[in-house]
Amino acid sequence: MSKNNKEIVFYTNPESRACIVRRMLEEVGAKYTTKVLDYNGQMKTPEYLKINPLGKVPAITHGDLVVTETAAICAYLADQFPEKNLAPAPDSPERGTYYRWLFFGAGPVELATSAKACGWAIEGNEQMVGSGTLNEVMAALELAISKGPFICGEQFTAADVYIASHIGWGMQFKTLEERDSFKSYVERVDERPAIKKAAYWTRN
Amino acid sequence: MSKNNKEIVFYTNPESRACIVRRMLEEVGAKYTTKVLDYNGQMKTPEYLKINPLGKVPAITHGDLVVTETAAICAYLADQFPEKNLAPAPDSPERGTYYRWLFFGAGPVELATSAKACGWAIEGNEQMVGSGTLNEVMAALELAISKGPFICGEQFTAADVYIASHIGWGMQFKTLEERDSFKSYVERVDERPAIKKAAYWTRN
Ligand SMILES: N[C@@H](CCC(=O)N[C@@H](CS)C(=O)NCC(=O)O)C(=O)O
Ligand SMILES: N[C@@H](CCC(=O)N[C@@H](CS)C(=O)NCC(=O)O)C(=O)O
Repeated sequence: MSKNNKEIVFYTNPESRACIVRRMLEEVGAKYTTKVLDYNGQMKTPEYLKINPLGKVPAITHGDLVVTETAAICAYLADQFPEKNLAPAPDSPERGTYYRWLFFGAGPVELATSAKACGWAIEGNEQMVGSGTLNEVMAALELAISKGPFICGEQFTAADVYIASHIGWGMQFKTLEERDSFKSYVERVDERPAIKKAAYWTRN
Repeated sequence: MSKNNKEIVFYTNPESRACIVRRMLEEVGAKYTTKVLDYNGQMKTPEYLKINPLGKVPAITHGDLVVTETAAICAYLADQFPEKNLAPAPDSPERGTYYRWLFFGAGPVELATSAKACGWAIEGNEQMVGSGTLNEVMAALELAISKGPFICGEQFTAADVYIASHIGWGMQFKTLEERDSFKSYVERVDERPAIKKAAYWTRN
């Protein structure tokens, strides 16, 4: 397939959300070229700002295409490598569950954990703020992983790559509580060979 | 197709993000039952918390399936009604652009506009906070709509339903600047018959 002839370039930093994309690249078994950008200006060059106007990693290019946003890259790669079965079929009900939790990670989880890290009070504004409180976000995450073994049931998907990374990271950085349900879910995901290969947080 | 025999129930409030889902339901031409929930407790009943543990609208049920998160519902409906062409083909490069801006809306746009509305300072934490500053978010939105007429080019997609609603809402509530590029994009989307029918912000 021609798409597999196009080069994937992966813009990353070893201490960043880009490690989630590294996991996904290993899950799909893609060939890719890694470009490590430091936090001292390399993300803010005019060339890189054309790729990501936020001046942040991760980003990928696939031929002429640019994709930014961690969850978007995960969803895109799952669709580009359908033979890896990392997304439920587009016309299946599970596809709704898949999108639900991918977007829940990108929206409410990011927001509530950033608020916690930065000392912003959601309380008092929770009706308007799209995440609700951190406690509500954790209750929702419990629901996401309650069916198991994975978010969409038996099928491991890109939503697990993304959500397990968020939960693992959140517990590590104390933006999410350590809960047994969270820990055993993260362990289940961490057992996967591709996830081990990506060696989360320790490589570029 | 059997999926079109399953009932869609739409949980909403006329003054909420659920209006974006109303637009999408009209775009796909789905039959649906509307349940209006008020802000005085109807979103916090034990029954509704089973649907959305955040106690928020929107949510939909489609047969036994529950989908929450505005952007997730939009992406799900686009995939369930492929004949409406509201998403690029799963194996196309445009699919990457589509996901990029859907997730950008759910993540950075939600975060930076909530910070603005709540008076939270991103400055000083922008390296860690996934949105960057509001100015960077607006620069990225300009890029999203710069190709035109729509985010994926000629094809109007669910990403336009979602992003145009965010931009229109942001300009109205002063969380985003009024810019000519934003206004003409929103006008382009507002011209669509289904969007007019949804009568954004004025109906249930
Ligand atoms: N919304 C983005 C957030 C990406 C992000 O915030 N990346 C951080 C590292 S984890 C970054 O590159 N920060 C550098 C900077 O903002 O200068 C995503 O989900 O991919
Ligand atoms: N992340 C959710 C946010 C939904 C949301 O915040 N809805 C608000 C209305 S716009 C709500 O239902 N608030 C009621 C409450 O929290 O009590 C989404 O994107 O759908």
